[in-house]
Amino acid sequence: MSGTSGQSDVKYAISLADVQAAAKRIKGFVHRTPIMTCQTLDALAGRHLVFKPENLQKIGAFKARGAFNAVLAIKETSPQTLTKGVITHSSGNHAQALALAARDSGCPAHIIMPSNAPDVKKAAVRGYGATIHECEPTLEAREATADKVEKETGGIFIHPYNNPFIMAGQGTVALELLEQAEDAGTPLDAVLIPVGGGGLLSGCTTVVKALQPGVKVFAAEPRGADDTYRSLKGGHWVPSIKPDTVADGLLTSTGDLTFPIIKDKIDDIFVVEEEEIIRATKLVWERMKLVIEPSAAVTLAVALFNADFKQAAEGYKTIGIVFSGGNVDFERAVALFKTLEASR
Amino acid sequence: MSGTSGQSDVKYAISLADVQAAAKRIKGFVHRTPIMTCQTLDALAGRHLVFKPENLQKIGAFKARGAFNAVLAIKETSPQTLTKGVITHSSGNHAQALALAARDSGCPAHIIMPSNAPDVKKAAVRGYGATIHECEPTLEAREATADKVEKETGGIFIHPYNNPFIMAGQGTVALELLEQAEDAGTPLDAVLIPVGGGGLLSGCTTVVKALQPGVKVFAAEPRGADDTYRSLKGGHWVPSIKPDTVADGLLTSTGDLTFPIIKDKIDDIFVVEEEEIIRATKLVWERMKLVIEPSAAVTLAVALFNADFKQAAEGYKTIGIVFSGGNVDFERAVALFKTLEASR
Repeated sequence: MSGTSGQSDVKYAISLADVQAAAKRIKGFVHRTPIMTCQTLDALAGRHLVFKPENLQKIGAFKARGAFNAVLAIKETSPQTLTKGVITHSSGNHAQALALAARDSGCPAHIIMPSNAPDVKKAAVRGYGATIHECEPTLEAREATADKVEKETGGIFIHPYNNPFIMAGQGTVALELLEQAEDAGTPLDAVLIPVGGGGLLSGCTTVVKALQPGVKVFAAEPRGADDTYRSLKGGHWVPSIKPDTVADGLLTSTGDLTFPIIKDKIDDIFVVEEEEIIRATKLVWERMKLVIEPSAAVTLAVALFNADFKQAAEGYKTIGIVFSGGNVDFERAVALFKTLEASR
Repeated sequence: MSGTSGQSDVKYAISLADVQAAAKRIKGFVHRTPIMTCQTLDALAGRHLVFKPENLQKIGAFKARGAFNAVLAIKETSPQTLTKGVITHSSGNHAQALALAARDSGCPAHIIMPSNAPDVKKAAVRGYGATIHECEPTLEAREATADKVEKETGGIFIHPYNNPFIMAGQGTVALELLEQAEDAGTPLDAVLIPVGGGGLLSGCTTVVKALQPGVKVFAAEPRGADDTYRSLKGGHWVPSIKPDTVADGLLTSTGDLTFPIIKDKIDDIFVVEEEEIIRATKLVWERMKLVIEPSAAVTLAVALFNADFKQAAEGYKTIGIVFSGGNVDFERAVALFKTLEASR
């Protein structure tokens, strides 16, 4: 992204200026989500929590920010190319986000999905007018299909997280959160951000460390997909192998653009157990009346249940908590909640 | 409420000034809930909808507004009396609201509840530090128990809706909604408000007709509890007898303080069927990521599904929609959603 930033740091894929440019670009296309507070959860956490509910974002997840930034940036620089379309492989929130961004920008979207993806996810993507290309549920088939669609259409592949425009778009979450917390008279001592591929975490960390370096950035990861935790604690990058967690938005490995920022700039990372994730999800449904997906609850789970976090955050009055999204099957969620009762 | 208002209209229990005084009184004690919008629901409704999600209010329902107004007004005028406590009979949101308002004002709360009320509701009220007085599940037992507790404690009975301070407190929803819609550049042509006992409807109608008389006030009621509809269409008040609806917050009859305002000032009332209520509830969970109770969805159900409303609102660009609350058992809600799939 050289050239777009006046303060670019050549070591990293994005800088603050890239996120600020993204904020300007996507304004009016995505929601500026509110911040929210909850006395009951403050009491449980023992400090003030300022929530950024990206489940209230378009398509129900922060992914709309990055997708709009990527598509609109292409529209600015090479509108002719955009008419050929955008392509990605995802069966999750990025697929819907890219489909919506493409539709609102008047270009085709091609989504590579495994043939065993749930019908409801396929329907959601089709609902935004995208074309689905099914493939075998293997990494090889997915990449081969993406290559094939790229060649056939001449469209541009947009990676779900390892892409500077995606990372910069996701970083706008932190731009807003810092500003909203200040405006509310509750400036943050730290932020808790979930990590899957690291698009959101790298984008937000870039913002926080450039604007308010004193604010700590803590990552939250499920124990069942703790590749980033192991990468950071072990001193070298490891991929996510056979992840197993209810937080199904956080299964992927970090990328070669996202990981360097995470490695160098975040303050610490904490992992949470499955039951803690489910418990935090249910508390948010019950107490905040927000539908969030389990992946979104790992941040709150750290704040409520992780002893290492409590030690690291001692004396911190106010923590920003990002809820990543709310795309969840209700029946599945309620079945998970029932497992808590059974285990009590 | 004579004396509290410079513009009081002696015919009615409350005036705009009472609601404005309530807004000042409860500021900082309750949330100023945001307004929200949803493109998907706009497309389904064929117009712009501006939502006021009172499920995000303290205790998960607008009832916090009235309860805080009532308790804080007593605190202003006779703090000595307040120490004896406040009393109500309710197994719903008003019970939790009064319990919280009492706790935050440092006075006892006594809640009369039928012995067959769900444990979860009793636990919620106890969680706010209130004392529960159980009685047989009949109207007579409830009133006798309330009388007894009043005599024993010297506390003040606060009716769930037929009380000027409660009505004025609930009216603050409309004060905020009108202002927020203007600020967003989408002034309202009409508002849709649910009616059970009529506290919210009478309070909001008072505000709208005083501040912006051109804005239509439409009430929304379930077919299975359509006493207000029948009262207005039949020309004389009728009580709610054997109501039967999933919208279990809207079972009660209107009161002699709320009904006159409703009768004289609202523009029209529309009823919706059970399936429409469930469908609207599910849409809000899915598309807005908000947990709302079925009672809260009657307004949206009117906007989406009621042919009479569509005729009455022809040409109206922007409608304000109040979501009353979000206190619902998740398993029950998901079971209701499943009935939709079965009936398709």
